Amino acid sequence: MPLPHEDDPAFPLHKGGKIEIRPTVRIRDREGLALAYTPGVGRVSAALALDPGLADEYTWRSNLVAVVTDGSAVLGLGDLGPTAALPVMEGKALLFKEFGGVDAVPICLDCREVDDLVETIARMAPSFGGINLEDISAPRCFEVERRLIERLDIPVFHDDQHGTAVVVLAALQNAALVTGRALGDLRVVVSGAGAAGVAVSNMLLNAGIGDLAVVDSRGVVEAGRGDLTDVKVDLASRTNKAGLSGSITDAMRGADVFVGVSAGRVPDEVVASMAPRSIVFALANPEPEVHPEVARRHAAVVATGRSDFPNQINNVLAFPGIFRGALAVRATAITEGMKLAAAQALAGCVGQSLEPDHVIPSVFDPWVAISVAQEVARAAVAEGVARRPLPLP
Amino acid sequence: MPLPHEDDPAFPLHKGGKIEIRPTVRIRDREGLALAYTPGVGRVSAALALDPGLADEYTWRSNLVAVVTDGSAVLGLGDLGPTAALPVMEGKALLFKEFGGVDAVPICLDCREVDDLVETIARMAPSFGGINLEDISAPRCFEVERRLIERLDIPVFHDDQHGTAVVVLAALQNAALVTGRALGDLRVVVSGAGAAGVAVSNMLLNAGIGDLAVVDSRGVVEAGRGDLTDVKVDLASRTNKAGLSGSITDAMRGADVFVGVSAGRVPDEVVASMAPRSIVFALANPEPEVHPEVARRHAAVVATGRSDFPNQINNVLAFPGIFRGALAVRATAITEGMKLAAAQALAGCVGQSLEPDHVIPSVFDPWVAISVAQEVARAAVAEGVARRPLPLP
Repeated sequence: MPLPHEDDPAFPLHKGGKIEIRPTVRIRDREGLALAYTPGVGRVSAALALDPGLADEYTWRSNLVAVVTDGSAVLGLGDLGPTAALPVMEGKALLFKEFGGVDAVPICLDCREVDDLVETIARMAPSFGGINLEDISAPRCFEVERRLIERLDIPVFHDDQHGTAVVVLAALQNAALVTGRALGDLRVVVSGAGAAGVAVSNMLLNAGIGDLAVVDSRGVVEAGRGDLTDVKVDLASRTNKAGLSGSITDAMRGADVFVGVSAGRVPDEVVASMAPRSIVFALANPEPEVHPEVARRHAAVVATGRSDFPNQINNVLAFPGIFRGALAVRATAITEGMKLAAAQALAGCVGQSLEPDHVIPSVFDPWVAISVAQEVARAAVAEGVARRPLPLP
Repeated sequence: MPLPHEDDPAFPLHKGGKIEIRPTVRIRDREGLALAYTPGVGRVSAALALDPGLADEYTWRSNLVAVVTDGSAVLGLGDLGPTAALPVMEGKALLFKEFGGVDAVPICLDCREVDDLVETIARMAPSFGGINLEDISAPRCFEVERRLIERLDIPVFHDDQHGTAVVVLAALQNAALVTGRALGDLRVVVSGAGAAGVAVSNMLLNAGIGDLAVVDSRGVVEAGRGDLTDVKVDLASRTNKAGLSGSITDAMRGADVFVGVSAGRVPDEVVASMAPRSIVFALANPEPEVHPEVARRHAAVVATGRSDFPNQINNVLAFPGIFRGALAVRATAITEGMKLAAAQALAGCVGQSLEPDHVIPSVFDPWVAISVAQEVARAAVAEGVARRPLPLP
């Protein structure tokens, strides 16, 4: 059978998968086997039966996240189903380990109903120290996450929402700084009301942004519209203080910041209509909403999701460190305060090298995950969700 | 907090768990990231969406088993629940990799109904190349396995049943050989009608054993009893040609073989009442049904589940090689023929060194898993359940 895309180096690289299981203890003889397996392991299990919390000390769960999807919104590719999603979830697991030292197992689920997803993930939860939800389509993703957070006492985190929001906030803080403004003075337009759009909007509002309007494919999300989902009704009630309505063209006129997390295109002249020293985050992948070189003619700061332009907004800057920090103190949840701390830490990593084309650190900056983990762990303790104290510095 | 059992070396060995995830590809730069993750991984996922079978080539599923339990029958310890079962499942995953080179992920499920277990495992199945069921109590384990085999096109194997049965058959073949008899001439008593007892009985019957009676806590399993579960009614219809009834003492008188897979005790004099050159497999753990040194006074061959006596009947002799072989040819199931082939291969590993105190190879014999895998793969091809041909020798 000929291999698909034989000339595409992604295929040979994926042959046999990208991760494996490795023992961390060696079984060299009968005595070793009798400790790592029966009868020794039975004594450990008996102790855990009396005190289940010991599983966080004596199993790999202490450093383990499930990367769970239903394959309904894979990258920008859409509904590919659970099997085709597996290479992406494996890639995520690879990034968790490479960038954060966190073990992660891909779990691709063959079900779609919110009830079924919640129930299935809750049943698996004893095996894991945290749940990273991934590539589950909106609006189901919101309810799946909300119900799992309610039900489980381990961190549940939909990375497409909060990972993106953390990195956007970090970049925006630095973009405001480098252009000499405060977050409270900025008017923001978020294009896209899916997982990322909703979470980015919520996080920017929590961080004290001045005003923010969300635009979906039918225009500005505002209470007067009759076609809003529950999530968008809620969003309308907390956004758009300026009372905008109409299309994205209307909303963008005079705006300070554009955050694109949709597949829509934004014409050159619409970017030109923004306020002076504008900030454009065109994060659609692989085609940004506006080409970064075009945007840069009008805007003071431009970021994309791509690695071949300056200022790459990439979730890998956030999720490895966030889970690393949460697991280190056995946090029961990832709170808003922990996410804000992650954004602060990330913004801080840029430090002295801040400039318009460098508002966010490189994904290969080895300090990023450590710094994010440390601040997330500290915030977990401060917010009272840590089950054990900070490790010694 | 003081650690439990600080003087027990099993606890420090288990600290932080016994397995980890390791990348098999390295991400060294932006180009590497763009192949292993977006956009490169998207091209692989898109190819899998068109042909899901490619997941067996381009993901770690090609060599991956889920070790799934509900924690209802953990080792000999009973119902400890899913969290306390995790160290055992992790140990199993460790053995899968160490002995068979197979990646395995522990999944401990917080549910008990057969419907729920089947549904949950089926939903997770796209993530795995095979399912190893573990420590699920009888009689639920039979139906869970049966329904998953029906529903899924990947190997589903309840190791407490079939792993044990394969090793018992291998040891019994060699024990018959070393005592100069044919399997067809042996009368066997199996003590225990749980997962292992039922599977051992079925496998020995399939291998051509002469006669076999099963004894549970209430005596010989025979059609006249009014207290039998469906599984035992079926067993009664295919066993006990001699028409025995009564207690284990009655059944053992004149028997050639005793296979104990229960927690019951068998008195010295009952062993003494067996036929000359008798074969005693006292597999209860940690306390065998009869002490092996006592049994050896009367029996020609004695085996236990323990590593500190000769002839250790240990599932680790079977499951790593069985799954290795099944995964190598992408088998859709583990058939009876594949299990019989595994037993043959295992028995053959003893070779020239066969003697009464060596009817089964050592778990540290490096040839065992390779030999079992090879014969299992060959049998899968012969039985028409292989999705790809045998790898080159």
